[in-house]
Order: sequence, then C-alpha cells, then structure tokens
Amino acid sequence: MTIETVSVNRSHGGVQGVYKHASRETGTDMTFSVYVPPHQDSAKLPVVWYLSGLTCTHANVTEKGEYRKACAELGLIFVAPDTSPRGEGVPGNAAGAYDFGLGAGFYVDATQAPFAHNYRMWSYVTKELPELIATQFPADINRQSILGHSMGGHGALTIALSHPDRYRAATAFSPIAAPSQVPWGIKALGGYLGDKTEAWRKHDTIALIEDGARFSDFLVDCGEADPFLSEQLRPELLERACAKAEIPLTLRLQSGYDHSYYFVSSFMADHLRWHAARLKA
Amino acid sequence: MTIETVSVNRSHGGVQGVYKHASRETGTDMTFSVYVPPHQDSAKLPVVWYLSGLTCTHANVTEKGEYRKACAELGLIFVAPDTSPRGEGVPGNAAGAYDFGLGAGFYVDATQAPFAHNYRMWSYVTKELPELIATQFPADINRQSILGHSMGGHGALTIALSHPDRYRAATAFSPIAAPSQVPWGIKALGGYLGDKTEAWRKHDTIALIEDGARFSDFLVDCGEADPFLSEQLRPELLERACAKAEIPLTLRLQSGYDHSYYFVSSFMADHLRWHAARLKA
Repeated sequence: MTIETVSVNRSHGGVQGVYKHASRETGTDMTFSVYVPPHQDSAKLPVVWYLSGLTCTHANVTEKGEYRKACAELGLIFVAPDTSPRGEGVPGNAAGAYDFGLGAGFYVDATQAPFAHNYRMWSYVTKELPELIATQFPADINRQSILGHSMGGHGALTIALSHPDRYRAATAFSPIAAPSQVPWGIKALGGYLGDKTEAWRKHDTIALIEDGARFSDFLVDCGEADPFLSEQLRPELLERACAKAEIPLTLRLQSGYDHSYYFVSSFMADHLRWHAARLKA
Repeated sequence: MTIETVSVNRSHGGVQGVYKHASRETGTDMTFSVYVPPHQDSAKLPVVWYLSGLTCTHANVTEKGEYRKACAELGLIFVAPDTSPRGEGVPGNAAGAYDFGLGAGFYVDATQAPFAHNYRMWSYVTKELPELIATQFPADINRQSILGHSMGGHGALTIALSHPDRYRAATAFSPIAAPSQVPWGIKALGGYLGDKTEAWRKHDTIALIEDGARFSDFLVDCGEADPFLSEQLRPELLERACAKAEIPLTLRLQSGYDHSYYFVSSFMADHLRWHAARLKA
C-alpha cells in the first residue's frame, strides 16, 4: 500500500497534504487530502472523514472549508476523499452531466454496467481508504467520525447508520436525506444500482432508519436560502424519520445561507467541536 | 458610479459579495470582492484593503484567505481588488508571463507604452475604488487599513508609506520588499515605468523609507520555507531599513511555512486583530 505525495503545505501549525494512490476498489488512481494537526511524535489522533458533494474533488473543501484552525485546536485528522473514480476508461462523462458519473459517485458500490467496475465509492471510503490512513498517518483508527455536504451529507449519514459502532459522530451540511424520493437520488441510485428500488434502501438515510438502523445522534445544518432545499434535500423527511425512530437530531435551518462553501465554512468549526466532543468522550 | 453584483453569499453572519464595475482608471471592467460583517443598520464600519499577489484575482483570497470569521468578530469590511486590468485589448498577455501584465499590475500607474493606458492600479486602488466603496457600502472611509501578499505586500507597504495619514495599519505576508533589487520587481517596474530607476523609488518600500517616508508600525510575516524568500522577497532589507529609520517592525519568520494561502490563512486572523486594534484606537 503506497501513496504518492502530490503536495504538502504547513498550515495552522500542522500539515495539509494531498496524496494519490492506485485504488484496488475503483481500479483508478485516487486523490485525497489529509490534514494532520500539530501533535506529539508518538500521538495517535482521531480521524474525521469529510465527504464532498456533486462536482467536487478533494480540493473544494481543502481550499474553502476553513477546517484547519479548528482541527489544529481540537487535535483532529481531517480526510477528504474524491467523489468518484476518474481517468481514462472510466465511464460516466459521456453526457457531461454534473449529477451522475464523474464527480457524482454517490458513495455506493455500483452494480450496473458499465459502472460496476469503477464506481465503488462505498467500499473505497469505508474500507480501502481507512486501511491506508491507518497505516500511513498518525491515526487512531478506533476513533473515527464522519461528516459531509449535500451528496456527501447523504454519504456520511448512510455510512454512519450502517456502521454505528465505528463512527462516534456523524453530522451533515445540506444532506440529500431521501435520495430515493428526489431527482438527484433517483437518477444516481437508478443508474448505479438499477431499477429495483429495494436495492436503494441501504443507500437512503430515511429508508435505513425505517428499516431499523440507528445512530447515537446527528447534527445537520441546512441553509434556509438553499435553492435545492425543498426539491433535493428534504430535511423535513429526516426530521420526521428521526423523531419516529427516537434518534436525537439537532437540525438547524440557517437563515439566509445557501448551498455553497460560504455556508459550509461558516459552521465547520461548530461541526468539528461536535465531533471532538464525541471522539474524545 | 454603478456596480453590478456578480454574486452574494451569506457567510459567518455577514455577506460575501463579488462585484463588477466599469473603471475609469483602467478603462476596463474590474471585479472585486467585499465582505461586510454583521452590523447594525446605521453602522459605518472600518475598511481593510487586501492586495493580492502575482497571478491572483480577487478570488484567491476570497476563497482561501479564511478572513471572514475574524472580520465578523472584529466588525471589519474586507475589500479584495483584482491585480491588473483584464479583457479584450488590454496588453500584457502576449508572452504568457505570470510575472508581468495580466495578474501582475504591481500597484503602479504605468507610464510606458503600451501599458500606460490600462495599467493604473495605483490610482485604481488608492482613489477610484475607495470612492466607490465609500458610496456603495456601509464604510467609514476615515478608518482604512491595508495589507497584502507578495506583490500585494509590496503594494500595501508602498501605499501605506505614501499615505501614512490615511491608513491606520499596514501589514504584509511575504512582501516583495525591495522590487528595485529583485528579478520580479526589476522586470515589472522597468516594464511599467521605464528604465530610469529614479521613477521606481516611490514604488519600492526600501527606497521610500530611505527617501524619508514613514509609517507608525508594520507587521510582516514570511514563511521560512518560502522558495522566493532570499531571491525575491528579501525581508532582511526591510528589517535593516526600518531599523535605520526607526519604524517599529514586527517581522516574523514562520518556521516551515511557504508562499501559499495555506500560510496566509494561518496568520490572517492575527493580522486582522492587529488592524482592528489600530482602526478602533
């Protein structure tokens, strides 16, 4: 398991790195970023996973997420994977769609041709990359948590609900809460997993909760002025499902905020404090 | 004096805007960003000017500068102009150089053909844009301060030394302290101002100080691992000139840091606190 260093830059007392490796899951080179805060030589630090939204790579949150100061203060490693496989031979860019294929892996293992070979973001993010982080960075892999934005919020919530003992905290910005019920999700889950909607349920936060999945508690921020709020994100469905399942949910509709990183960065430190409290409990 | 709104996004409780206007100085459309922190309706807020480095537009610091949280807490308006005129008919892109022409205005009013018509960044930044900010934003134009990065650090220091009564604070990241003596500066000042180096002196921090210009005090951060430090930036010349002229200089060589926004963002809040203390004194 080797990684290639693309760049390293000192920042907020720690090191922001960008790395590349040949992924066995996606069959492509994958790029990801890792921020390691200042720490003592022998220390092993908790790991926060950040999953990005449609069209993003590791770079969006790395450049615009404003997480480094909080991670430095709280002693958190912050990992940002890409959102899909990329490169020659990877299908999904033919139609030029922003919401399917490249940049839009939706954190599932595709079962449908021609995507099944490369589009294995679920296994990449939950298995392969954690193994690599555990061996290559000063990570305490027994203390992981996860958050994400939009499509990545969907990823964070579904992954947390599927591994409630592995992730000690899970939060989201503007998550696609019910992909089975909204245009972005129907297109993606249909394309990657096929028409039988039964297969979608383990990749839908609402359906997972309905089917009995549980998590300790969630923090979710949405922008009240987010243009995708009512058609694609549907936080009210999350609120209803969590209430019924008695999952404690802190859902905040932030007045005047939209879907951008200007919103995400405004509340990033809040989320990281939520994670730190649970990672260090 | 009209401006066109390119985008506005709520962030850290305030509003991050990007605007465009037809500049009389440059003869082109110019784009700039303004962050207005949360404030009471009738309030007039101090204005911090941020001048960017080679190759940058307003966007680099706007996306990567991590200034909004501090500006929101300190009540500062933050203005980021572009670094040169741009657009059809603007000379300077023929050779494709990153250090002259587009993205490299060096904060001077060019006197040499074919640049003299458009390359008027000194007047743009010190006259035209302040007038516009004063009329279009809740700005207390009697309380201004200035900072910048690299070429923009050069701009901030030379503009402050030339207007010691207008700017109440001046700080810089990795400034080109002695453009008359380093390759970037010799190329730019020669190209915009001609071969007679006497005309360069008012655009060279060291020469300005030698010629009697003074400022209350400076804060300057440089990355000790900045690859441009010894050839292009020369902070030791600034240290010597300030010592001789008895200008209080806080010069910090930050261990392990480079020339990037990963460095700038790490110390941005420090600089803004320095500005706020002087703007509110």
